[in-house]
Amino acid sequence: MTTTPDVPGAAPGLSVGMVGYAFMGAAHSQAWRSAPRFFDLPLQPRMTALAGRDAAGVAAAARRLGWDSTETSWEALVARDDIDLVDVCTPGDTHAEIAIAALEAGKHVLCEKPLANTVEEAEAMAAAAETAAARGVHAMVGFTYRRVPAIALARKLVADGRLGTIHHVRAQYLQDWIVDPEAPLSWRLDKAKAGSGALGDIGAHIVDLTQFITGDTVARVSGRLRTFVDERPLPAEHAGLSGTAGTGRGPVTVDDAATFLADFRGGALGVFEATRFANGRKNAIRIEINGSRGSLAFDFEDMNLLHFFDGTEDPESAGFRRILVTEPQHPYVGAWWPPGHLLGYEHGFTHQVVDLVGDLASGTAPSPSFADGLQVQRVLAAVERSSDTHSWQEIPA
Amino acid sequence: MTTTPDVPGAAPGLSVGMVGYAFMGAAHSQAWRSAPRFFDLPLQPRMTALAGRDAAGVAAAARRLGWDSTETSWEALVARDDIDLVDVCTPGDTHAEIAIAALEAGKHVLCEKPLANTVEEAEAMAAAAETAAARGVHAMVGFTYRRVPAIALARKLVADGRLGTIHHVRAQYLQDWIVDPEAPLSWRLDKAKAGSGALGDIGAHIVDLTQFITGDTVARVSGRLRTFVDERPLPAEHAGLSGTAGTGRGPVTVDDAATFLADFRGGALGVFEATRFANGRKNAIRIEINGSRGSLAFDFEDMNLLHFFDGTEDPESAGFRRILVTEPQHPYVGAWWPPGHLLGYEHGFTHQVVDLVGDLASGTAPSPSFADGLQVQRVLAAVERSSDTHSWQEIPA
Amino acid sequence: MTTTPDVPGAAPGLSVGMVGYAFMGAAHSQAWRSAPRFFDLPLQPRMTALAGRDAAGVAAAARRLGWDSTETSWEALVARDDIDLVDVCTPGDTHAEIAIAALEAGKHVLCEKPLANTVEEAEAMAAAAETAAARGVHAMVGFTYRRVPAIALARKLVADGRLGTIHHVRAQYLQDWIVDPEAPLSWRLDKAKAGSGALGDIGAHIVDLTQFITGDTVARVSGRLRTFVDERPLPAEHAGLSGTAGTGRGPVTVDDAATFLADFRGGALGVFEATRFANGRKNAIRIEINGSRGSLAFDFEDMNLLHFFDGTEDPESAGFRRILVTEPQHPYVGAWWPPGHLLGYEHGFTHQVVDLVGDLASGTAPSPSFADGLQVQRVLAAVERSSDTHSWQEIPA
Amino acid sequence: MTTTPDVPGAAPGLSVGMVGYAFMGAAHSQAWRSAPRFFDLPLQPRMTALAGRDAAGVAAAARRLGWDSTETSWEALVARDDIDLVDVCTPGDTHAEIAIAALEAGKHVLCEKPLANTVEEAEAMAAAAETAAARGVHAMVGFTYRRVPAIALARKLVADGRLGTIHHVRAQYLQDWIVDPEAPLSWRLDKAKAGSGALGDIGAHIVDLTQFITGDTVARVSGRLRTFVDERPLPAEHAGLSGTAGTGRGPVTVDDAATFLADFRGGALGVFEATRFANGRKNAIRIEINGSRGSLAFDFEDMNLLHFFDGTEDPESAGFRRILVTEPQHPYVGAWWPPGHLLGYEHGFTHQVVDLVGDLASGTAPSPSFADGLQVQRVLAAVERSSDTHSWQEIPA
Repeated sequence: MTTTPDVPGAAPGLSVGMVGYAFMGAAHSQAWRSAPRFFDLPLQPRMTALAGRDAAGVAAAARRLGWDSTETSWEALVARDDIDLVDVCTPGDTHAEIAIAALEAGKHVLCEKPLANTVEEAEAMAAAAETAAARGVHAMVGFTYRRVPAIALARKLVADGRLGTIHHVRAQYLQDWIVDPEAPLSWRLDKAKAGSGALGDIGAHIVDLTQFITGDTVARVSGRLRTFVDERPLPAEHAGLSGTAGTGRGPVTVDDAATFLADFRGGALGVFEATRFANGRKNAIRIEINGSRGSLAFDFEDMNLLHFFDGTEDPESAGFRRILVTEPQHPYVGAWWPPGHLLGYEHGFTHQVVDLVGDLASGTAPSPSFADGLQVQRVLAAVERSSDTHSWQEIPA
Repeated sequence: MTTTPDVPGAAPGLSVGMVGYAFMGAAHSQAWRSAPRFFDLPLQPRMTALAGRDAAGVAAAARRLGWDSTETSWEALVARDDIDLVDVCTPGDTHAEIAIAALEAGKHVLCEKPLANTVEEAEAMAAAAETAAARGVHAMVGFTYRRVPAIALARKLVADGRLGTIHHVRAQYLQDWIVDPEAPLSWRLDKAKAGSGALGDIGAHIVDLTQFITGDTVARVSGRLRTFVDERPLPAEHAGLSGTAGTGRGPVTVDDAATFLADFRGGALGVFEATRFANGRKNAIRIEINGSRGSLAFDFEDMNLLHFFDGTEDPESAGFRRILVTEPQHPYVGAWWPPGHLLGYEHGFTHQVVDLVGDLASGTAPSPSFADGLQVQRVLAAVERSSDTHSWQEIPA
Repeated sequence: MTTTPDVPGAAPGLSVGMVGYAFMGAAHSQAWRSAPRFFDLPLQPRMTALAGRDAAGVAAAARRLGWDSTETSWEALVARDDIDLVDVCTPGDTHAEIAIAALEAGKHVLCEKPLANTVEEAEAMAAAAETAAARGVHAMVGFTYRRVPAIALARKLVADGRLGTIHHVRAQYLQDWIVDPEAPLSWRLDKAKAGSGALGDIGAHIVDLTQFITGDTVARVSGRLRTFVDERPLPAEHAGLSGTAGTGRGPVTVDDAATFLADFRGGALGVFEATRFANGRKNAIRIEINGSRGSLAFDFEDMNLLHFFDGTEDPESAGFRRILVTEPQHPYVGAWWPPGHLLGYEHGFTHQVVDLVGDLASGTAPSPSFADGLQVQRVLAAVERSSDTHSWQEIPA
Repeated sequence: MTTTPDVPGAAPGLSVGMVGYAFMGAAHSQAWRSAPRFFDLPLQPRMTALAGRDAAGVAAAARRLGWDSTETSWEALVARDDIDLVDVCTPGDTHAEIAIAALEAGKHVLCEKPLANTVEEAEAMAAAAETAAARGVHAMVGFTYRRVPAIALARKLVADGRLGTIHHVRAQYLQDWIVDPEAPLSWRLDKAKAGSGALGDIGAHIVDLTQFITGDTVARVSGRLRTFVDERPLPAEHAGLSGTAGTGRGPVTVDDAATFLADFRGGALGVFEATRFANGRKNAIRIEINGSRGSLAFDFEDMNLLHFFDGTEDPESAGFRRILVTEPQHPYVGAWWPPGHLLGYEHGFTHQVVDLVGDLASGTAPSPSFADGLQVQRVLAAVERSSDTHSWQEIPA
């Protein structure tokens, strides 16, 4: 019997502290745990500490999720000398405070999206990130879906010129989890906590993804927000998505759905829709890009597929290709399984860890940056203003 | 040997005269010819006369398409005593003149969509239709896609309450026939002839179809038109879609693509897109409706299918149903083939004839009426104004 | 007003007499009627006479389907001097007698599939066809699905070498019309009339189609027939597919389903299945071909699509292409509608008329020949023998 | 700061030793690591030891995969007192020896499929498992795909009677990884190591899955094996699937493809196909079940979907339902992510650990047992005999 050394290989460590342990905390934990098992990482992540306000809750979460120790405040976590990176998985109203403090304390930061609940907070965060970067401390916002292999392939095909000039961007993020008017209120339906509703929670993703894939940005928007159900049962207790109803009703203060037209700076026409009321659609991130040379189509409900039309082919045998993005040639895929063995939702988080760790080791600024997160925030704010004022709104370049 | 009597059964005749013999003329001819072979019609259509300006052209077309005689002006056709119904298959700039004259001459009228190139013309036509109706002379506008069985089934499911309250309407009409910037000018790219581009040619269909399926109407819009290619080669000669390029270039005076947000009067949020630049999409009329109890999805590139999600089912076995709309229980289908034997594009035109002839025989006002066509025209005009003024535009109720 | 001449163009006529007027008779009638309206035919078909035993029935059918005259026996039809071609649309037990008589009378023959109910009859028919051909009288068997554009394209891609060496042939013809054990007996379930059940009715199609697409033939088979429901209600009267049940029950004397393995002479492994018990599948002719360079997949429930995988492409962007077979470059399609406008079931019959008329005009032997029909019959007979004897059975070359 | 206790909760431990660390070893490691993070396990797995013959190789693998210690022989692993369960991930020719020794040493055993390379070995293993079970020592064979949620749901729907009497079973396992004749030899193409080719490697899965879903077993088969490429380049070194070619060529001694017909004891007709030559299909496990009340269809290339047709519905709105198997109501799914967030290939292995650990804690015999694995082996052996003898072969009940 030979005992396996504690640290795989000679890689130096990267000590991670995470704040928050709900849905996103579970996903990030699996990523920190899995990344070094499948990828050769130049830094070896350690799941050092988990912070949360409730002592019993955070202790149970740490046991379950595999964190070595716990703190009952994010401030205590940020103050620890043995933490290299703070991973922010809390609701959006706390992002700015935690991330800025962590950066100022010299910790790298991975912050869940949306970057913040307001443009002002996002601006402060981007400024803090810029200052920190000058000291070699880096920040990244967690638009994880960029690391889905089919999305990364989509970006590559556009960058390689396979689509030519982009004419159309069509994106929808469709869910249905509150189509029942008796589904109870959650923090996600509370503007104070969540900032906005479908727009910020899921609309943010399709703004980021389409800008990422096209390499272009949105210049102006005309938008329409709608709250179909104004009032809902209060939850029985601190309830998440699956919370049961309690007594009394409370107001829904965010949008249930957001639609908007967009002009991209490069000339493409965009049409966007984010909703929690698309009955039967569970997590359908659907993106289509039409260009002068070809087209792409993607649906997260079939996340291992990318559909590609090559408009330069002989029409006799041309057609949208159903690319099963599980080949060793595809982004991220070679580290996992043989062709045809699918990846799932959480793999994007693992890829995020891989890219982030690689950037930190090489001193490269990770992407998407807080500035990228701020730019998305500005698009979302413009959509809200547009809906309020019934007018087109410009996004500053 | 027994000679078959000339007129099938004892049905009285309906003598039809058609104006125009291009794409739509061919489709209408096949419909007039086929309808009595598969359906029991209370009036027996006769393909009496075809009108067109070029004597040789109209004669050749009449031989090929099966019309008994020809006229070289629509005025001559309208003047004939032996014509009961005038079928208008010409470009949109001539619809008003021909249709109004025919109605005034006491002929029923079937007029291709869009009803006219301007709201003013459409208003005159609707007024003429109303006047004629008082005399028992009827008019119908050819929004044929309503008669695709899957669309008729969609309408039925909504009317039966299977979708509940409608929250979302999502509609696209995607083509790619001029994505090549060297595709030559056709009359469809000339505002004087065509009125508008993608908006009026194909956007009109998705406005009509979504209003038809939901039983609701659009109240206001925010739209964006775009012409991606401003100038194109002049066609070598009188060229249609497949025209070859000649010498010189001319301006494109219509939109290549139109996008718009819409509020429906009943509260649904609409998102619309019509384009001739969606590379790889040939004739993709895609409609999705999300309601409080269920959802529908349709794509004309799979026109025999309707996808239906019943949100009241047990989640364990709920899912979008791929309904193959070829059962005897489905609208129009029983007259054709056994289950699983598909219908094609032209069958909608045959069903249009069937419904129109039935209405004429019973004295019922056919649907969609010229008033319906006018309403669609008003939506299209509002989209154009919205795009010009960068503002939301109301559609009069 | 100019009267359109009776015969389009200067094409000489082809006078057709049809025997039988049920499902196939309706489809053939539509084809004879439509072909000259969309295609330039070198001979102008005339729908001269329809034969059927019941005087009233055949008269009504002739009126509905558009035949100029009627006969109450096929013998009378075959005896007429004004008939150039006999189109045989009766059940299989009458094919041999009618077709041979017609050929001997100097009439061309189009005979529905399966060619006959027994190999012996099929041999006699093939011999009669060979004799007639020496006199310039031609015969064709109606394996119509060869003329579906997607199937014709599949054949072309294989012939062009796009698939390389064929390794696998996978074919299913799935229906469900008698899955209900209370569905009544029809002539199709009576061995004396129909010869066999799923095997001959629909299995014949997938044998023919896979041999056609691959350009290869089946050498030996191991098969299994099964009758799941042995006894069914007698029909109330002369009932077809939709017959209602009467009193009493009768035996099902044909197979409900047939499965078989096949060796193709060229080395491919074949797997075949034909059934009327595949709940939810209405008319699913599903064919997949896997070769050393590429693959094809087709499903008749999406008959305008062909899926093609080009194995020589860069794996990064390789995938099954969804070819919408509605481009002018595709077989038969240019005569119909613009790209993206689908064809339906009956169009294959029209294409069959087009090809047959072209061959007759040029004196070419039409394809598939009676010899081809005989070869399919031999495969079917070998499957039956194999099922009876539990052994592999050879098909003579 | 609070240190997280080493063992989550009060669960007793389950000390695991694994033999082999290639493809399956990586998948099993991820499962042992992830299961306790998402599920409440009654026993807490510890990844105690990894065995492999090459000291450096096994050490590197243990570091990467996360095993606490290593052994350079499986005998040493089996001899250790601190091991509760042996997880056998080696090629099939070693399964019998290792598994039997481990059972005799009182270790529970999880053994990868196929259970063994011969029926004789499998019989010895099943006998050893039976003996061990009497002592409370349990064995399980790793037919992991049973734990894909869509497959588990399929089993449930059949068991609930939603399909009625099963008429048809149609199963294919299609890959294409050696369609290139220059792909080098691997141990999987060597009969001595692998036992058989496509038949045992992937055909085993579809035999197990269809028997599992239907709750029925195969009674007799008629099969056809084929080796399309008899000779291949020798690999440059110890090469796996992605091995590069060296010098010289060697014989392929296993089947490239296997097809067989099957009778199920309950009366269903089965058609099976397993191949490594289906160009463009990467890991397509496709299963269709047709019953008197409904049908199911599954494709592992879309592994989060199950298609279900309910034949008892009104035909107007009946159709195959695309069930996205990501609802909390679905098997295993509640422990993971919200609806619409997909699972991947490796999750099946995690579910296998969950079920196995639960059974061990409760003293229940885990399923599938070695007896189940033996039965599958007998089916595979019957297919081989059938192919050799060109006859149907019975499988003992």
